[in-house]
Amino acid sequence: MKSAHSSFRKKLFDIVFEANTPVGKGFDVALLVVIILSVVMVMLESVPSIGDAYPAFFNVTEWIVTIVFTIEYVLRIWLVKRPWSYIFSFYGIVDLLSILPGYLSPFFANTQYLFTIRTLRLLRVFRILKMAKYILEGEILVKAIIASRRKLTVFILAVLTVVMIVGSVMYVVEESSNGGFTSIPKSIYWAIVTVTTVGYGDISPETALGQFLSSVLMLIGYAVIAVPTGIVSVEIAQVTDELKHKSPTEACPNCGKEGHDTDAVHCKYCGHEL
Amino acid sequence: MKSAHSSFRKKLFDIVFEANTPVGKGFDVALLVVIILSVVMVMLESVPSIGDAYPAFFNVTEWIVTIVFTIEYVLRIWLVKRPWSYIFSFYGIVDLLSILPGYLSPFFANTQYLFTIRTLRLLRVFRILKMAKYILEGEILVKAIIASRRKLTVFILAVLTVVMIVGSVMYVVEESSNGGFTSIPKSIYWAIVTVTTVGYGDISPETALGQFLSSVLMLIGYAVIAVPTGIVSVEIAQVTDELKHKSPTEACPNCGKEGHDTDAVHCKYCGHEL
Amino acid sequence: MKSAHSSFRKKLFDIVFEANTPVGKGFDVALLVVIILSVVMVMLESVPSIGDAYPAFFNVTEWIVTIVFTIEYVLRIWLVKRPWSYIFSFYGIVDLLSILPGYLSPFFANTQYLFTIRTLRLLRVFRILKMAKYILEGEILVKAIIASRRKLTVFILAVLTVVMIVGSVMYVVEESSNGGFTSIPKSIYWAIVTVTTVGYGDISPETALGQFLSSVLMLIGYAVIAVPTGIVSVEIAQVTDELKHKSPTEACPNCGKEGHDTDAVHCKYCGHEL
Amino acid sequence: MKSAHSSFRKKLFDIVFEANTPVGKGFDVALLVVIILSVVMVMLESVPSIGDAYPAFFNVTEWIVTIVFTIEYVLRIWLVKRPWSYIFSFYGIVDLLSILPGYLSPFFANTQYLFTIRTLRLLRVFRILKMAKYILEGEILVKAIIASRRKLTVFILAVLTVVMIVGSVMYVVEESSNGGFTSIPKSIYWAIVTVTTVGYGDISPETALGQFLSSVLMLIGYAVIAVPTGIVSVEIAQVTDELKHKSPTEACPNCGKEGHDTDAVHCKYCGHEL
Repeated sequence: MKSAHSSFRKKLFDIVFEANTPVGKGFDVALLVVIILSVVMVMLESVPSIGDAYPAFFNVTEWIVTIVFTIEYVLRIWLVKRPWSYIFSFYGIVDLLSILPGYLSPFFANTQYLFTIRTLRLLRVFRILKMAKYILEGEILVKAIIASRRKLTVFILAVLTVVMIVGSVMYVVEESSNGGFTSIPKSIYWAIVTVTTVGYGDISPETALGQFLSSVLMLIGYAVIAVPTGIVSVEIAQVTDELKHKSPTEACPNCGKEGHDTDAVHCKYCGHEL
Repeated sequence: MKSAHSSFRKKLFDIVFEANTPVGKGFDVALLVVIILSVVMVMLESVPSIGDAYPAFFNVTEWIVTIVFTIEYVLRIWLVKRPWSYIFSFYGIVDLLSILPGYLSPFFANTQYLFTIRTLRLLRVFRILKMAKYILEGEILVKAIIASRRKLTVFILAVLTVVMIVGSVMYVVEESSNGGFTSIPKSIYWAIVTVTTVGYGDISPETALGQFLSSVLMLIGYAVIAVPTGIVSVEIAQVTDELKHKSPTEACPNCGKEGHDTDAVHCKYCGHEL
Repeated sequence: MKSAHSSFRKKLFDIVFEANTPVGKGFDVALLVVIILSVVMVMLESVPSIGDAYPAFFNVTEWIVTIVFTIEYVLRIWLVKRPWSYIFSFYGIVDLLSILPGYLSPFFANTQYLFTIRTLRLLRVFRILKMAKYILEGEILVKAIIASRRKLTVFILAVLTVVMIVGSVMYVVEESSNGGFTSIPKSIYWAIVTVTTVGYGDISPETALGQFLSSVLMLIGYAVIAVPTGIVSVEIAQVTDELKHKSPTEACPNCGKEGHDTDAVHCKYCGHEL
Repeated sequence: MKSAHSSFRKKLFDIVFEANTPVGKGFDVALLVVIILSVVMVMLESVPSIGDAYPAFFNVTEWIVTIVFTIEYVLRIWLVKRPWSYIFSFYGIVDLLSILPGYLSPFFANTQYLFTIRTLRLLRVFRILKMAKYILEGEILVKAIIASRRKLTVFILAVLTVVMIVGSVMYVVEESSNGGFTSIPKSIYWAIVTVTTVGYGDISPETALGQFLSSVLMLIGYAVIAVPTGIVSVEIAQVTDELKHKSPTEACPNCGKEGHDTDAVHCKYCGHEL
């Protein structure tokens, strides 16, 4: 009996967690379809002309999706060897947050918008499509961003300082004649909109001095704002370089260390011929 | 008779498909002029003050262009050795789509706007001008984009996820007090407009919390959005490097070292003739 | 007596200027909290709904902050060995400018906005957090910007020339029919807003010719404006390369070749120990 | 007499054309001041509140500047050895165009705006400040842009094709419900404003389909638009590399050719030891 149970559990595990078998892949694809449907549903419900016309339909489908996701969540906890490590993993938390709003909706208003956390479940697409190559490329990007996190932090801090000072100055300059610069925080918001070149135009300088200062901010900012691109480019180049140009498979026959340049004749760690 | 026929056909083939002879080049230039005229015509017709003033003129010229393009299309099918491979080639499909709307116009309204597909025929300009060098440069760009397609896909997916979540949050924050954030899809549209730094300003945050969240989105987004530039830069650098500066296969016959410039006659390491 | 005095002074010096001891670090953290509070206070005061409601509160807190900063400033002058070099250092000037507006406020209106200079004091955060690595990364950025200052100057001058000419032309084209292009300086402001891709939309071309010229400006400008990014990227790459990956001075004692990785123990060309 | 004449001419030549002597430098600085003043004057005159208040003042100063520039122009033609090569040089044409509008103003209206061509005379600043280094940096930029001109052309052509097609499609989608997309050329203008991320917001999509298509255009465009930055970055890197890392002074002692890598031991053209 126990073996039948555990073989059933083993099969379920393969279906839910593996994507190699046809059934396992079918499960993942079906799950992805439900996720996409549930996200689309939440979005459509927010459109007044649609959401207000079929409230019952959206109410029912949301409960169905919530129950389906709950079953899946319970299954995963039951099937996995170390339930706690799943529960506190990124996907485990996302899976829980995807069903919680459903059970909170009778008690709180507007919880349905929390369902948009389900968007994160779309990341499962990478598992299904067996995109090993995509994952490698994604890793390069993540590595490059991590490698440049300190430079980006320094840069963002510098931009924040500039933006706070320029915002304050523009408030003093524009406040009296312009309905947009009503406070320093709002002026700082304007400075961020300007320096990132988004430029909504909801607030824009109207005095000659304000327009001159904005122009200086834009031009200097434009030259300096090239910095994050430069930072990230260099890091991507280096990470790519390390992955591609180093011979990752070539280990020193003497000391076994890797990471040699492709033009290296001797191991750079022990001096043994490669 | 047959030989006279086939020699006439051969001549026509040279005129229509080749650009080396003066007549062939003349045909291509004439065709390009007609294409440009037809595209300009469609655009002008859409300007109310012009299109409404001379409806007959535009009607007639469109029929003339359609007939000219039809003759050219039939000629190409007749002359080419493998008609089907032409018909299903990129240019074959564009050529067909360039004449179809003309014959559909009596039955459907507004088909004239479909003529803008003719814009794609402008790509023939590359054939005429014998821009071998331009084609090489174009290939470098295409190769770089293809080489970075996975990284760009991962990046776009990541941006889409961020944009969906931020859009949903902004909808919850701004909906009650702002006429712009009327639904989640519209909020996502706003988030895309913001994160790509386009910033129309047709929708912009009005609450203090919304403006703060937008500022965070812009600043973080600004630092991260440098990623595609970095990706493409690195790939262009690599493709350029491979194509232009190094003969990767050419090793010195004496010392066996590689990495010589394409204009090198002697090995730069040992001096042996390459 | 003198030794007791100087030992007290020595202790105070360690507290105010050093961040290694717990008390010194505590002092720096407390100071940073006061700085942040004072900056937030000035910002909040500028929001009409907050500043107008509690004028006394903001008046009192500003005086408290001013007095605290004054005591700190006097302490620093008293404690430091060379007072003048502190007074004329970057931080010394910022520290002075952070308290001056407080004493000027009874005589002049709106001096409270000058308090935003205190934002610069936030840069002390780097001292406290012992972010040696952050400072190194910051230095890379500063070095890269300094190394590219001439290229950026030439680029900004070129952009300014283009912007002045385009602004003048657009003024002639748009002036009669468009309420936005009321003078050449305003047209130049528009050209800067356009070429930096900020694009507020407070002024935008309305005539067909104006929109055509703007499109040309945007497209050419877009291709050329990539230049500062390119400049800075290349410099960051070089500075990073110099600082991180190579020991430029370390040559192999055997074969004399350079360009070894910083973690290399043996020459990668001849295998000799470095 | 003749020698006295030619020595006077020689002295004048040194003053006008050379910047090494104090008098020559003084002449150049004085000229630059007049150029800046004349440009500022034209700009100020276009501001209604200023230009309308002092019409006589602007009229007189413009005549003074025109006469000063005319004297300088005649002097240059008289002093230079090959007058025609100066007249048809870049600076010669700019100098002529800087005075022509002055003499045309009695006959045509609005010629004063043509004075903005004088902006180009500001480029003389490089001569005065002896910015040899700036000129070198400027040359790097110009070389990089020239080297990437074909790639940029192909890229701009590709963007133009996309923009024409998207513009036409958006016209069909938005025309009936949106006051902005009134014709295909205007829709193309919108597409250019969008794809270059300028985003004025004077025209923006209003239908759901239009906003969806715009979002796709922005996202794809955003990923692809990184291309010019990549192109220019790579070229700047290469040009910088060639200038810095090649030893420009090191010629082969045997064949005299230059352009060797810094790590080259043998001439790559003739094989002789360097």
